Amino acid sequence: MTVKSVTELADHVGGEVIGDISVEVTGAATLTEAGQGDISFLANLKYEKDLQTTRASVVVVGKDYSAADIPPRALIQCNDPYYAFMQIVVLLHGHREHEKIGISPRASVSGSAQIGDDVDIHDFVCISADVQIGDNTRIYPSCTIGPGSKVGKDCIIYPNVTIYDGCQIGDRVTIHAGTVVGQDGFGYATHDGIHHKIPQIGGVIIEDDVEIGSNCAIDRGTLGYTVIGRGTKMSNLVAIGHNTQIGPHCLLVAQVGIAGSVQVGKYCVMGGQVGIVGHIKIGDGAKIGAQAGVTNDVPEGISIAGSPALPITQAKRSLMLLKELPEFRKKLRELDKSLKHLIKEEEESDNNNSE
Amino acid sequence: MTVKSVTELADHVGGEVIGDISVEVTGAATLTEAGQGDISFLANLKYEKDLQTTRASVVVVGKDYSAADIPPRALIQCNDPYYAFMQIVVLLHGHREHEKIGISPRASVSGSAQIGDDVDIHDFVCISADVQIGDNTRIYPSCTIGPGSKVGKDCIIYPNVTIYDGCQIGDRVTIHAGTVVGQDGFGYATHDGIHHKIPQIGGVIIEDDVEIGSNCAIDRGTLGYTVIGRGTKMSNLVAIGHNTQIGPHCLLVAQVGIAGSVQVGKYCVMGGQVGIVGHIKIGDGAKIGAQAGVTNDVPEGISIAGSPALPITQAKRSLMLLKELPEFRKKLRELDKSLKHLIKEEEESDNNNSE
Amino acid sequence: MTVKSVTELADHVGGEVIGDISVEVTGAATLTEAGQGDISFLANLKYEKDLQTTRASVVVVGKDYSAADIPPRALIQCNDPYYAFMQIVVLLHGHREHEKIGISPRASVSGSAQIGDDVDIHDFVCISADVQIGDNTRIYPSCTIGPGSKVGKDCIIYPNVTIYDGCQIGDRVTIHAGTVVGQDGFGYATHDGIHHKIPQIGGVIIEDDVEIGSNCAIDRGTLGYTVIGRGTKMSNLVAIGHNTQIGPHCLLVAQVGIAGSVQVGKYCVMGGQVGIVGHIKIGDGAKIGAQAGVTNDVPEGISIAGSPALPITQAKRSLMLLKELPEFRKKLRELDKSLKHLIKEEEESDNNNSE
Repeated sequence: MTVKSVTELADHVGGEVIGDISVEVTGAATLTEAGQGDISFLANLKYEKDLQTTRASVVVVGKDYSAADIPPRALIQCNDPYYAFMQIVVLLHGHREHEKIGISPRASVSGSAQIGDDVDIHDFVCISADVQIGDNTRIYPSCTIGPGSKVGKDCIIYPNVTIYDGCQIGDRVTIHAGTVVGQDGFGYATHDGIHHKIPQIGGVIIEDDVEIGSNCAIDRGTLGYTVIGRGTKMSNLVAIGHNTQIGPHCLLVAQVGIAGSVQVGKYCVMGGQVGIVGHIKIGDGAKIGAQAGVTNDVPEGISIAGSPALPITQAKRSLMLLKELPEFRKKLRELDKSLKHLIKEEEESDNNNSE
Repeated sequence: MTVKSVTELADHVGGEVIGDISVEVTGAATLTEAGQGDISFLANLKYEKDLQTTRASVVVVGKDYSAADIPPRALIQCNDPYYAFMQIVVLLHGHREHEKIGISPRASVSGSAQIGDDVDIHDFVCISADVQIGDNTRIYPSCTIGPGSKVGKDCIIYPNVTIYDGCQIGDRVTIHAGTVVGQDGFGYATHDGIHHKIPQIGGVIIEDDVEIGSNCAIDRGTLGYTVIGRGTKMSNLVAIGHNTQIGPHCLLVAQVGIAGSVQVGKYCVMGGQVGIVGHIKIGDGAKIGAQAGVTNDVPEGISIAGSPALPITQAKRSLMLLKELPEFRKKLRELDKSLKHLIKEEEESDNNNSE
Repeated sequence: MTVKSVTELADHVGGEVIGDISVEVTGAATLTEAGQGDISFLANLKYEKDLQTTRASVVVVGKDYSAADIPPRALIQCNDPYYAFMQIVVLLHGHREHEKIGISPRASVSGSAQIGDDVDIHDFVCISADVQIGDNTRIYPSCTIGPGSKVGKDCIIYPNVTIYDGCQIGDRVTIHAGTVVGQDGFGYATHDGIHHKIPQIGGVIIEDDVEIGSNCAIDRGTLGYTVIGRGTKMSNLVAIGHNTQIGPHCLLVAQVGIAGSVQVGKYCVMGGQVGIVGHIKIGDGAKIGAQAGVTNDVPEGISIAGSPALPITQAKRSLMLLKELPEFRKKLRELDKSLKHLIKEEEESDNNNSE
């Protein structure tokens, strides 16, 4: 167990200690789950009330967060409390450690493959002809890397991943278990009632520092490449269509599906189960709410939601009003009745007048 | 082929035979698919009409179901006809049988792993350091169990499953092919435009008697555990986020996605493609309709549907009225026109009167 | 690099060259991505404007497409330009080539399996007892084929695929990596609070010429078969429930989920993330828009969209009007106010008159 003093931790993240500087930290947890000896964080003021009841010994807070009204314990004030907390978790626990095992005699490595230094290739991995693997990359059991594909340096490929032929994976890329990169895109020319397969002769480029969750599926390009941009992170069960290009630093939550030939800008965020039709353009920094169905280009910086997707305030208003439809109908009927009544009265009064 | 008499079967399920007690049963099928010699069941009166046309020799029905108006054949009356039918299917066909093969010399089993009695470990399975496998568990080809994970007794792990390090699987758990348990949750602290990975140092606890379909993905906890409660069953392609806790005896249909830190109670039912946002609470016994998008806490025992989800009667009414929106618009326009006409008449009449 | 003259290509597809018959073609690309030496196609007049700016040397167009107004280069006129383009891509690039490797000594092949001629079985494949594999089929690394299953001739099974016991795969079937065929369907009889597993004793039939994407999951039948009809193509992460029967020549885009016992006709098309409830019937040639939720039978030839799904024109109208709900409410309030005002005036006027 690593023990760190609160002052060490504050120094590590460039923060300042408020309160008891003698506190020692042995673990990290959320405010509600923390116990004695744990450090926690308050990044979103929505959770401020949890500060009153947390059993955490230390809490990382924003620079301007006042300690006046909370129970006596240590705080670490800093600029970006969530980032600081992350740095502390890394310090206390580190990332997953990978045993150095070298190349397992139970792996199958083609004689024409080029394997870098300090590479781990676990049991039952299959490295095909002309594959290149960069230094310090680890490939876990039962992965297959197809002919001519290239995996960069410092990558982690978890078990049961399949990378087809002719794919290029950058440096420091992590791919979680069961994910498939480079299967044929969904392309057929239908003629006389038969769907004829269009050869999918392109590939996939996954740029540096990408992380991909479990059981995703990333199509190869039909002609040219499907691209996942630098620093982009995607969660589990995400489907990416052929020739789609995702820009750098995007975040794609679980079960997102993007059809083919979509152009996604940088720093886009997509919630769970978002669906995007083919051949459209998602501008830089667009935010797409969970389960949205995107059927048209999305301008830069816009937040959208709903299926079909609308700008978020419009979507929220419309969806809220959905609840009121029974009320609307009732009102419409009342109005109709009142109006008819009035018209009838009018007519009677006219008739009376004309009598 | 197993042959059972209708009286044997009735005894087996504590039911009573009505009709021809000499009938023999050799198979089981649904009412519409059954042929001569088959037993079938009627659990939902919606399918009562199929009783008239079925070729089944015997039908299991509820205790109070009257046989008067159906063609002469044997019925078995009992309390819970679907459960009784299931017991009969088990008697006639049994569950899948697993050949006892012991530990394959083509598997890779760490010297520090503890393997129970009568365990089957198939070809190309990788059992990492410090793994524990309970008695009578079967692990099919190309599975990987990561360091320090524990699988209980009488489990069945189908091919190509990955269980990461530090996960705990209870007794009598079934995991279907391609499923991944314990990949890193989707946690990043974004700082200066870079998404920094938060170490995912928690684990996964899968309690006893859980069954998980194919190609699911269950995140490990960031800190602490992701939990799948005792007796819960989930279908294929389900995604469960980090630190989510699913209570006992839930049913999750295919392609459900639950984000992180959700608390699901016991006996909840989720239809296909349901999406649930993070950090909310689903009460015991809640029923969530297919494709619903759940964005708020759900009280105990409630049925909801739609995206965003509403109580089911409200959702149905609103969605039904969606169809009538063109009608609403038409009516609004008519009312507007009539009213304007009336107001105009009024003014003219006022003008006339004041002339 | 294959070089073909435009006249050769035109002959190959039964088309006619318009323009420079000396042009040589070395590659294929879309209109926007093509460079010099590339052939491209115009199948959808939506993309006609790209003809003005493309750098393609040759473009395949429809029979009646006039070349008058486009830059001088060669066109190939033919009946079905997309199909012709596909034929040309096959001619230029061919389909993926599979190295003949025979049966790897690192594969595990049961002594009771029947393996045809010219079959490739790669490393770490597990072929169980009584499996039959047809001539010229290739099975890539880490696949498992369960006891008694049958794979036809000329199939391609990519890495990490699991086929359970008792499944039948036809000829010329392609299954992409990570897909699972034949896991148990989601069937439980709940009794006294416990979900009792119903034995799933049926199987899966995949007919000839089917292609299945990556990480799909196709349930076996509970009793009887789940069927994927001849020539049907499905993309990635598709879930098919037990006993569902999909007709021939359907197209299922990524992340479609179909529950159990659904009957899908022939030539149906389903967009991404479509969900279909159990026990319904989808007529021949039905077209279901992306993310639709289908809860009722769909008649032959109908196009539907939305969740719950409606005929497409109705769905579009309703969803468009969703945007106008705030406008509706405003209008309702105005009408209400005007009407009340009018009624009040009436009453006052009546009162005045009666004074």
